[in-house]
Amino acid sequence: MAPDQPPSRLNEEQVIRLIASLAGEGGRDLAVGIGDDAAVLGGTAGGLVVTTDLLVDGSHFDLGFMEPQAVGWRAMAANLSDLAGMGALPAWGFLSLGLPGAPEPEFVQALVGAMVALGREHGLALAGGDTVRAPQVILNLCLIGRMGKAAPLLRSGGRLGDAVCVTGGLGGSAAGLAWLKAGRDPRQEGADAAVEAFLRPSPRVAAGRALAVSGRVRAMMDLSDGLASDLARLARASGLGARVEAASMPLHPGAGAVAAGLEGDALAWALSGGEDFELLFTCDPGEVGLLAELVAEADGGLGVTQVGRLVKGPGVLLSSQGGEQDITMGGWDHFREDAT
Amino acid sequence: MAPDQPPSRLNEEQVIRLIASLAGEGGRDLAVGIGDDAAVLGGTAGGLVVTTDLLVDGSHFDLGFMEPQAVGWRAMAANLSDLAGMGALPAWGFLSLGLPGAPEPEFVQALVGAMVALGREHGLALAGGDTVRAPQVILNLCLIGRMGKAAPLLRSGGRLGDAVCVTGGLGGSAAGLAWLKAGRDPRQEGADAAVEAFLRPSPRVAAGRALAVSGRVRAMMDLSDGLASDLARLARASGLGARVEAASMPLHPGAGAVAAGLEGDALAWALSGGEDFELLFTCDPGEVGLLAELVAEADGGLGVTQVGRLVKGPGVLLSSQGGEQDITMGGWDHFREDAT
Repeated sequence: MAPDQPPSRLNEEQVIRLIASLAGEGGRDLAVGIGDDAAVLGGTAGGLVVTTDLLVDGSHFDLGFMEPQAVGWRAMAANLSDLAGMGALPAWGFLSLGLPGAPEPEFVQALVGAMVALGREHGLALAGGDTVRAPQVILNLCLIGRMGKAAPLLRSGGRLGDAVCVTGGLGGSAAGLAWLKAGRDPRQEGADAAVEAFLRPSPRVAAGRALAVSGRVRAMMDLSDGLASDLARLARASGLGARVEAASMPLHPGAGAVAAGLEGDALAWALSGGEDFELLFTCDPGEVGLLAELVAEADGGLGVTQVGRLVKGPGVLLSSQGGEQDITMGGWDHFREDAT
Repeated sequence: MAPDQPPSRLNEEQVIRLIASLAGEGGRDLAVGIGDDAAVLGGTAGGLVVTTDLLVDGSHFDLGFMEPQAVGWRAMAANLSDLAGMGALPAWGFLSLGLPGAPEPEFVQALVGAMVALGREHGLALAGGDTVRAPQVILNLCLIGRMGKAAPLLRSGGRLGDAVCVTGGLGGSAAGLAWLKAGRDPRQEGADAAVEAFLRPSPRVAAGRALAVSGRVRAMMDLSDGLASDLARLARASGLGARVEAASMPLHPGAGAVAAGLEGDALAWALSGGEDFELLFTCDPGEVGLLAELVAEADGGLGVTQVGRLVKGPGVLLSSQGGEQDITMGGWDHFREDAT
C-alpha cells in the first residue's frame, strides 16, 4: 500500500474473519467455534454452549426512547434466542453492566429485574458479572446453555432440497419499532401485537429444544438480523443457496396492521427487519408436518411454516408474482454509517 | 421518599448487592455466585469457573495514551488473573468487541493478537464472541476455566490467625503508569521494570493452580484493586479483619525506582495502586515456607511474602513505625467522579 493512501478499513464480516484467524484452531475440546449462534464446548465440559452479545445505549437500544424494562428484556431475549438456535437448555448468565455515574436504584431494578425474570422463565440463573462506570449504559450478556443428550444444531448441516422453515410470524418487531417511532398509540388494536413483539419478544427456547431433541432437524439458527441475511448465512454455511416464496412468508399479524396504518411494507419487515427472534431451520420436506406438531406441543401452540427450499447456491432468491429477485444482501452490516 | 427529593443514588457495592438480590439463589448447580473472583458452576458442569470484565476506552484504558497491544494484553491479563485467583486452569474465552466505525486491520490485529497470544500462553483458546459498532472501543472478556480435581479457592475460607501472603512485588503497575503519565523515558533503567509491570502484567495462573492443588490454602483472590481494598474484601468474606506490616510489604523493584524519580510513594502504590495482578492468599502460618516453594517451582521462581495475619475484624490495619492506621478504605469505587 502506498504510504499516502488511506489505510484499508474492515467491515463487520472482515473483523470477525480476522479475529477467527487470530484465534486459530480454538484449542482442545472446542467442537464449534466462532461463526455459529453459540460456541459448543466439548470434551470435559460435556456439551455446554456459550453465547455473548454486547449492547450499547444509542447504538443497539435507546434509553431516551425505551423503558429500562424493555431494554433488559430484549437483551436477555436476544441471548436466549441464540441458545434456542442451537437447541440448548439455558443454564447460567453473566452480566457486565456499564453505567454512567451513580445510578438510581429504580433504574437498576427495572433493567436487571426484567433480565432476571425472563431468564428464570427459561431456566437460566444470573450467576455473576461485572459492574463498571462507562460514558453510556453498556450491557454484555454471556450465557451458558446445556445440550444434555441432544446434539447442537448448527448452521452448516443443511442438505440440497431441504425444506426451509420458520417458527411464528415475521416482521412484527420491525413493525412495532416503526409504529413507536411514528409516535402512534402503542395500544391501538392490531398494532399492539407488533409493539409487544418489539418490546417483549419471546425467545423460542422450548421450540428449539424440541427440534434438537427430535433428531430430525439438519440446520438451525435464530432469526436476529432478518430472514434474508440469516438464511444467506445458514445456506452459505451449508455450502448451498436458498429459494423462498413471498406468498409463503408468515407475516406477523401486527406487521400487517402497522403496514396499513403507516403505509409500510410488511414483507420487507419480514425479510430484513430483524429481531423477530424466531427460529429458522431446515429438514427433510417429508418431516415438516411432524416437526410442526412437536413445536406446537412444546411451545404453546407456536406455528411452523415452510417458506422455501435449500438449492444450489450461492445466495437467497425470493420468488413472487413479479418474478425472482436476489435478496441475499437484505441484511445489514453493523459498521455501516446508517446502521442503528 | 417525597416527590421533590432527588432520587437516591447507588455506589458500586450497592449496585452489585442489588443485582445479587435480584438474581436470587442463582439456581441449580451454582456453587458460588456473585461476589467472588469468578462463579463456580457445579453439578453437570463439573467444576467450571467463569469470570467476566467490561472495559471501556476513556474509562478503563486510554487508546490515546496506550498502544492497542497493551490494551489487549492487560484486558486478558486481568481476566486470567481472576481465574488464577480461584486456582483454575484457563480454557475458553469469549470476546465482545465494540468498535467506532470500520477499524483498520492493524488495530484489530494488535489488540486481539495480544489477547490471543497471552491466552494461549496460559492454555486458553478464544472460542467466540460478538463484534458491534459502538461510540468508543469497548472490550468484554468472559473466560471459562476448569478446576479439574482441585477445589476452587474462595475469599471466604480464611480463619482467625491465618498468615496473609502475597506473590511477587506490589505497586509496580501504578508506578509504571505514573512514570508514563509524567512523560518520562519508559526505557530508563529501574523504572523500566515498573513500565513493563503496567503494560504487560503476568497473571499468576501457574502459581494459583499450584496453590489450589496443594490443598493447603484457605482463602485466595487476585490483587486487582490494591491490597488495602482487596484484603478488606477477603477478610470480610471470611468474617474477619486483617493486620499487615508496612515493613513486610514486598515492594515491586520498579516502584522504588519510580518513587525516587518522581518523589512518589511506593508504599501507597503497593497498598492501593491496584492492577498488580498478584495473588493474595491465607494459610496456616506454619505452611508459608512450603507454599512459597511450591509457587517458586510452578511459576518461574515467583516469590511469596507473608505481609500479616487475619485477626478479629472488621477492617484492615497497617502497622508501621508511626503506629497503626486503618487502611480499609484505600480502594476505590468505580462510580466515584474522580475514578478513572
